[in-house]
Amino acid sequence: MFKITFIGAGSVVFTKNLLGDILSFPELQDCLISLHDIDPVRLETAERMARWTAQALGASPTIEAHLDRRRALEGAGYVVNMIQVGGHPATLLDFDIPRKYGLKQTIADSHGVGGVFRALRTIPVMLDIARDMEAVCPEAILLNYTNPMSMLCWAWFASTRIPVVGLCHSVESTTRDMARYAGVPYDEVTYLGAGINHVAWILRFEHNGQDAYPLLRRALEEGRIPKHDAVRAELFRRLGYYVTESSEHNAEYNAHFIPHAGLIEKFNIPIDEYIRRSEDNLKEFEATRAKLLRGESFEITRSAEYASLIIHSLETGQPRVIYGNVRNDHLIDNLPDGCCVEAPCLVDRNGLQPTRVGPLPPQLAAMDRPHIAVQELAVRAALEGKREHVYHAVMLDPLVAAVMPLDKIWAMTDELLAAHQAALPEWRS
Amino acid sequence: MFKITFIGAGSVVFTKNLLGDILSFPELQDCLISLHDIDPVRLETAERMARWTAQALGASPTIEAHLDRRRALEGAGYVVNMIQVGGHPATLLDFDIPRKYGLKQTIADSHGVGGVFRALRTIPVMLDIARDMEAVCPEAILLNYTNPMSMLCWAWFASTRIPVVGLCHSVESTTRDMARYAGVPYDEVTYLGAGINHVAWILRFEHNGQDAYPLLRRALEEGRIPKHDAVRAELFRRLGYYVTESSEHNAEYNAHFIPHAGLIEKFNIPIDEYIRRSEDNLKEFEATRAKLLRGESFEITRSAEYASLIIHSLETGQPRVIYGNVRNDHLIDNLPDGCCVEAPCLVDRNGLQPTRVGPLPPQLAAMDRPHIAVQELAVRAALEGKREHVYHAVMLDPLVAAVMPLDKIWAMTDELLAAHQAALPEWRS
Amino acid sequence: MFKITFIGAGSVVFTKNLLGDILSFPELQDCLISLHDIDPVRLETAERMARWTAQALGASPTIEAHLDRRRALEGAGYVVNMIQVGGHPATLLDFDIPRKYGLKQTIADSHGVGGVFRALRTIPVMLDIARDMEAVCPEAILLNYTNPMSMLCWAWFASTRIPVVGLCHSVESTTRDMARYAGVPYDEVTYLGAGINHVAWILRFEHNGQDAYPLLRRALEEGRIPKHDAVRAELFRRLGYYVTESSEHNAEYNAHFIPHAGLIEKFNIPIDEYIRRSEDNLKEFEATRAKLLRGESFEITRSAEYASLIIHSLETGQPRVIYGNVRNDHLIDNLPDGCCVEAPCLVDRNGLQPTRVGPLPPQLAAMDRPHIAVQELAVRAALEGKREHVYHAVMLDPLVAAVMPLDKIWAMTDELLAAHQAALPEWRS
Amino acid sequence: MFKITFIGAGSVVFTKNLLGDILSFPELQDCLISLHDIDPVRLETAERMARWTAQALGASPTIEAHLDRRRALEGAGYVVNMIQVGGHPATLLDFDIPRKYGLKQTIADSHGVGGVFRALRTIPVMLDIARDMEAVCPEAILLNYTNPMSMLCWAWFASTRIPVVGLCHSVESTTRDMARYAGVPYDEVTYLGAGINHVAWILRFEHNGQDAYPLLRRALEEGRIPKHDAVRAELFRRLGYYVTESSEHNAEYNAHFIPHAGLIEKFNIPIDEYIRRSEDNLKEFEATRAKLLRGESFEITRSAEYASLIIHSLETGQPRVIYGNVRNDHLIDNLPDGCCVEAPCLVDRNGLQPTRVGPLPPQLAAMDRPHIAVQELAVRAALEGKREHVYHAVMLDPLVAAVMPLDKIWAMTDELLAAHQAALPEWRS
Repeated sequence: MFKITFIGAGSVVFTKNLLGDILSFPELQDCLISLHDIDPVRLETAERMARWTAQALGASPTIEAHLDRRRALEGAGYVVNMIQVGGHPATLLDFDIPRKYGLKQTIADSHGVGGVFRALRTIPVMLDIARDMEAVCPEAILLNYTNPMSMLCWAWFASTRIPVVGLCHSVESTTRDMARYAGVPYDEVTYLGAGINHVAWILRFEHNGQDAYPLLRRALEEGRIPKHDAVRAELFRRLGYYVTESSEHNAEYNAHFIPHAGLIEKFNIPIDEYIRRSEDNLKEFEATRAKLLRGESFEITRSAEYASLIIHSLETGQPRVIYGNVRNDHLIDNLPDGCCVEAPCLVDRNGLQPTRVGPLPPQLAAMDRPHIAVQELAVRAALEGKREHVYHAVMLDPLVAAVMPLDKIWAMTDELLAAHQAALPEWRS
Repeated sequence: MFKITFIGAGSVVFTKNLLGDILSFPELQDCLISLHDIDPVRLETAERMARWTAQALGASPTIEAHLDRRRALEGAGYVVNMIQVGGHPATLLDFDIPRKYGLKQTIADSHGVGGVFRALRTIPVMLDIARDMEAVCPEAILLNYTNPMSMLCWAWFASTRIPVVGLCHSVESTTRDMARYAGVPYDEVTYLGAGINHVAWILRFEHNGQDAYPLLRRALEEGRIPKHDAVRAELFRRLGYYVTESSEHNAEYNAHFIPHAGLIEKFNIPIDEYIRRSEDNLKEFEATRAKLLRGESFEITRSAEYASLIIHSLETGQPRVIYGNVRNDHLIDNLPDGCCVEAPCLVDRNGLQPTRVGPLPPQLAAMDRPHIAVQELAVRAALEGKREHVYHAVMLDPLVAAVMPLDKIWAMTDELLAAHQAALPEWRS
Repeated sequence: MFKITFIGAGSVVFTKNLLGDILSFPELQDCLISLHDIDPVRLETAERMARWTAQALGASPTIEAHLDRRRALEGAGYVVNMIQVGGHPATLLDFDIPRKYGLKQTIADSHGVGGVFRALRTIPVMLDIARDMEAVCPEAILLNYTNPMSMLCWAWFASTRIPVVGLCHSVESTTRDMARYAGVPYDEVTYLGAGINHVAWILRFEHNGQDAYPLLRRALEEGRIPKHDAVRAELFRRLGYYVTESSEHNAEYNAHFIPHAGLIEKFNIPIDEYIRRSEDNLKEFEATRAKLLRGESFEITRSAEYASLIIHSLETGQPRVIYGNVRNDHLIDNLPDGCCVEAPCLVDRNGLQPTRVGPLPPQLAAMDRPHIAVQELAVRAALEGKREHVYHAVMLDPLVAAVMPLDKIWAMTDELLAAHQAALPEWRS
Repeated sequence: MFKITFIGAGSVVFTKNLLGDILSFPELQDCLISLHDIDPVRLETAERMARWTAQALGASPTIEAHLDRRRALEGAGYVVNMIQVGGHPATLLDFDIPRKYGLKQTIADSHGVGGVFRALRTIPVMLDIARDMEAVCPEAILLNYTNPMSMLCWAWFASTRIPVVGLCHSVESTTRDMARYAGVPYDEVTYLGAGINHVAWILRFEHNGQDAYPLLRRALEEGRIPKHDAVRAELFRRLGYYVTESSEHNAEYNAHFIPHAGLIEKFNIPIDEYIRRSEDNLKEFEATRAKLLRGESFEITRSAEYASLIIHSLETGQPRVIYGNVRNDHLIDNLPDGCCVEAPCLVDRNGLQPTRVGPLPPQLAAMDRPHIAVQELAVRAALEGKREHVYHAVMLDPLVAAVMPLDKIWAMTDELLAAHQAALPEWRS
């Protein structure tokens, strides 16, 4: 019997979805589910939700809940990470301070200054988790869902031999969008995506074995790509390939939209979007908890997340291909060795085995590399305690650089360093 | 409707097996089978066999036979290569001339002096096939079954952009042997193999998720590994891992057995084995042809060959893992980049995607590298027309070097060059 | 007797300086100097200057002048390239068209949109020179002085086996500046520089074996770095290392200065500087020609250029270290393999031998990589005839991206493509 | 004032030669010489010799002698290593035990079984020296003269950040031999060598800028290469390039000579040669000591060793090229990354800077790689405490493999492990 530990299980709806996926597989129903959260109310809610889900699916896993993380991890085979360090208040700081310096952001959780500070406060906790896992479940694999994906996975590679894969549904959801725009049924579509998380590129997009990019180009030319996806449509027009995640994310990943007069309106860019989502998450938690306490039921449908598929393939040997964020061990030739890339991975009894992609088209690699530079500097700042690299990371973000001069970048970074101080790594220089 | 072309289809029994595998898949029955051989009698026999096989399986593929290779290739999606350049007489030379210099060989078709000369006479034909494919079926993939596997695939990588995968059942047959010796059912075994063709290593060997190497070690210590596999048992004892292919092949791949007094007997090494097999093949062809002409029937069982599985996965998208001989694009860290390695490959609609293995244990990489050196020199001799590299290739084979001094190596190579002259590349230096 | 060919010899003052350097070495005086220019007046002037220089130094080289380039190259051992394709009118276009779109530039000859179009019109001529050299002086080495240095050298690596080194005095002149600011005699200074041309970094700066960066940092803090070098001073403050070339160049290499209100004035950025220099060059040519015709004399002092030192070391074997722009064959770990980097090179009878630098500090590599991305796209546009990569190159320049949105970038690029059309490569897509 | 420490200074004649070289440079005479040996008599002799040498050259360095190694190292800038762990008795074991198994050796100090055991007993001492240097002279560079050169340097790279260069005069002495055979004055010769220590290859050999290999080939054909160099002459005949070190060394580096009947005589291979040299060394020490005590004088001539040139270039900045054994950081493409290679290095104030060689001709790389495999296994055996890798290292030596079967290899290795036990690393597996 294998054990799955959820760290940050208090993301109750997400926990419910992953559990629903896992327990839908007959081969996986006889497992041990161990839930951990640092917030007792959220942990108790997660446990209720887990028990409700198991019962609803007619499964009988063993379910435990632990406020003590190390006890939750003991003997685990799989560790699912969904923590959010600093929560809503930290997110607000990541928006409010840059806004004072004229920097408008949409999501601020994966790249750019928001991503850097989210990484700086999350990496110390990740390193603690790594130490715990080395001690009590050294054979486990970490399935990471926490953002900023690339920086957290990179810090992990560099700090422990425990394997990790970063999971995100954005390759799948993007290809679903593309199929819809192109007017073809999703189950007749095959694709190949590669790059970095949230800025991966759909390199091949086929409908029944035929290139379906011409259909997508026609949709673009005929104005059939919806308004809310205008940023990615414009990037597709200019670069020739569709990018993953969404327009609201990609709007803040470069200097091409937000800094230029009128483009926020023209491209329907939802500034401060993630603040609203974060507030909704808080409300959703309360609503879910209330429903649970009232004994109401929830809908269970298979999600687009890869975690259950990976566990199933590792346990049963059924070969599957999933998109994972993994170490670039010569997988993508024109992104730096050792960084974190998103690429197709084979999963079977031999483990998670990344496949080799080769080179990206040069314009696409060039769009990814500035983010990788920021990531490297943020990760090294956190791991080596080099405070100067925090400023370097922020100044090298293309959006920040287009919006404010160097003295402002230094001032904004100083203010963020002060505001987040309690959660940050210890600086050695 | 896709087309599969068999080059060297006159290997009638092999053609029958592959066809049987392919036509057993309902999704593949509606294909076009195109057979080519330079020998009209063998070609006619192959066509009869193909028609018989289709009928026996209740399939109705279109079947054609062409003495003209280019016509056979036109529009193909898959090309299966099974040629044997020089046939039985050339094989005899590869044994007889070295034997005069004191060199005893067993198979002489993959590595060593026999492998080098087989490569030198086959590469020019392979290059012709590549030119034909570039002209009439540039989108096809070559599924190569002809030996010497590594040298032919390497020459192919270096000469054309047509994709190739070299296929050999030796990883599968080795793990079947290992399961039998270890006393565990094969369908409960998982494994990971990597290295070069015929000298790949079973790096992981598990029974129901548990390391099964201890069971194999016990079989070794208790003398339960059969006598005919004594060479591989000894290599396992010394190196800690089981090697692929068979004891008769591995006996001639190093200096550890044949040159030392009494070891041919002690390790049951069947010197000149391949001459007998080659003679049997000739007899088998005659018997098969006679049976066909008499209208008798044959047994059809699924073979261990990967070709049909690859075609099925490429056509249907069902993900599978097969062992392929592919270009070492950073797949195995401690074998040279660009050489031909055998590694697990994912196959689905996105094509044949090698997975990354990482480093081999150092003693195993060290066993493979001398063969890669010989291969590189033979391939460069053929492609660059450098006659001097033929001598270098031969002198660097560990068995040859242990058996005779350099002047004898030069004399033996001169004699082989003269005997095979008609089939060899044109020398420029 | 060896032969040195000057291509673009009509840059008369530069030709005089290099010739003066070369003929100052007694071991080099007995050479054959071959001058080429496509402008007969400039060529005739260069020949007069060469003869005057030789006489002034008491040397008796053989001096030839050829309007036919191939004849000028025949049998050369060294080819010095100083061409300027399009001349002053093309330079004006590179400033005037972008200016209409709000893009202010200073030099526009090495990176950014100016660099891209200078590369696009120069690469076809460079390829012609390569073909000529392969035909009539295949053993020669190209000493390239023409900008944009990195793109031209990269295109050269990718197109011919003739060796090349790109030469620029900016590492030397930068370290002279640094010594002056730090208040130490230049002949007591040692240094190590590496990166890409014009954005290389002084990684080590020592006075008599002691780190002299603290002295430079004190000069910065005490306001002793002169106003005209304010951009590099600011980059030093933020990044921790001094950058090569000059403040006027570096001002346009990133988004940190020109796009932000008031910074052109604050940092003394001389917009349109190169237009003035180009006009001065025209006047200087006329003045020099007039002086020559009047029989007046010129000053001859050793210049900071490396050409004569390289030739001397190659001819005599005296080991020297020069800074060259060479192929990144694993010289700088965190810049892409195969791009053009500036690094210390040993020169002696064995040729020009780049030394390995290892990794740059990550923030410095991150400043160089966006330019390398633009270079790759421009070079591929020219070599592969891919017009779309011209737009990609321009959009990826950090300054362009900060100044205008994508539709304006496309419009500006279209206008530049039209204006320069006659000199551009043939587009295939 | 800089300090040079000699570890193993009791190699008195070698100490005298290096000191003579160093003190001949006026810029180096004002240094501190610190001598260390574990043998008080040898140390006292070395001190006498050092004082005599300084006086004879009219130099006044400070000279110290320490039985305590750490005190000898304190504050050193240069550490010269010349230790011999186990001395003559250990050397005898390295010959005597293999001889019982039929293995004849000549020198046994660099590769093969002798090299492996010399490495195994020396690496622990090297690691101790590294720990001492990290503690008391972390800025120093180690100039290593002790054999087995490649294995000791490789172990050093893998264990400490203290820089090291392995020094050997064999490239220089080989090119002197070649010049003599070719009949050209050595001071008109230039050359390029690369490979691994003692099996490096002279890739370019020129007389006044012209290829001088044809002269050497003529000498070979006309029988003018002397008998004592017959092994290298034969390798040159077969491989096309001359190998470094000497025929007596190279005779035991492959399977081509010693195992074959009559070849020891035909190629004048001096079996057990190093035993005689080792005995001579003991006698020479006694004679030298006696001379010193009698107050007699010695000859001082500049030696072929690089140590003094390196120190002079590092101190004065005069650029020089020396051959060093350094980490293969992409210096030689077709030898494994990270192994120890011998390549030209630039030395100036910026340190010792290896130059990039590119690929070796494939037959030469193929001759070096088996030794690198043995080295890797021996180094990993020592550093990781893996006893099984000792057997693997020995079985992979081409000479051992040609001479005895695997069971004998295991028995011989067991006997050597037992005999040297006191000096060996601690085994963990």
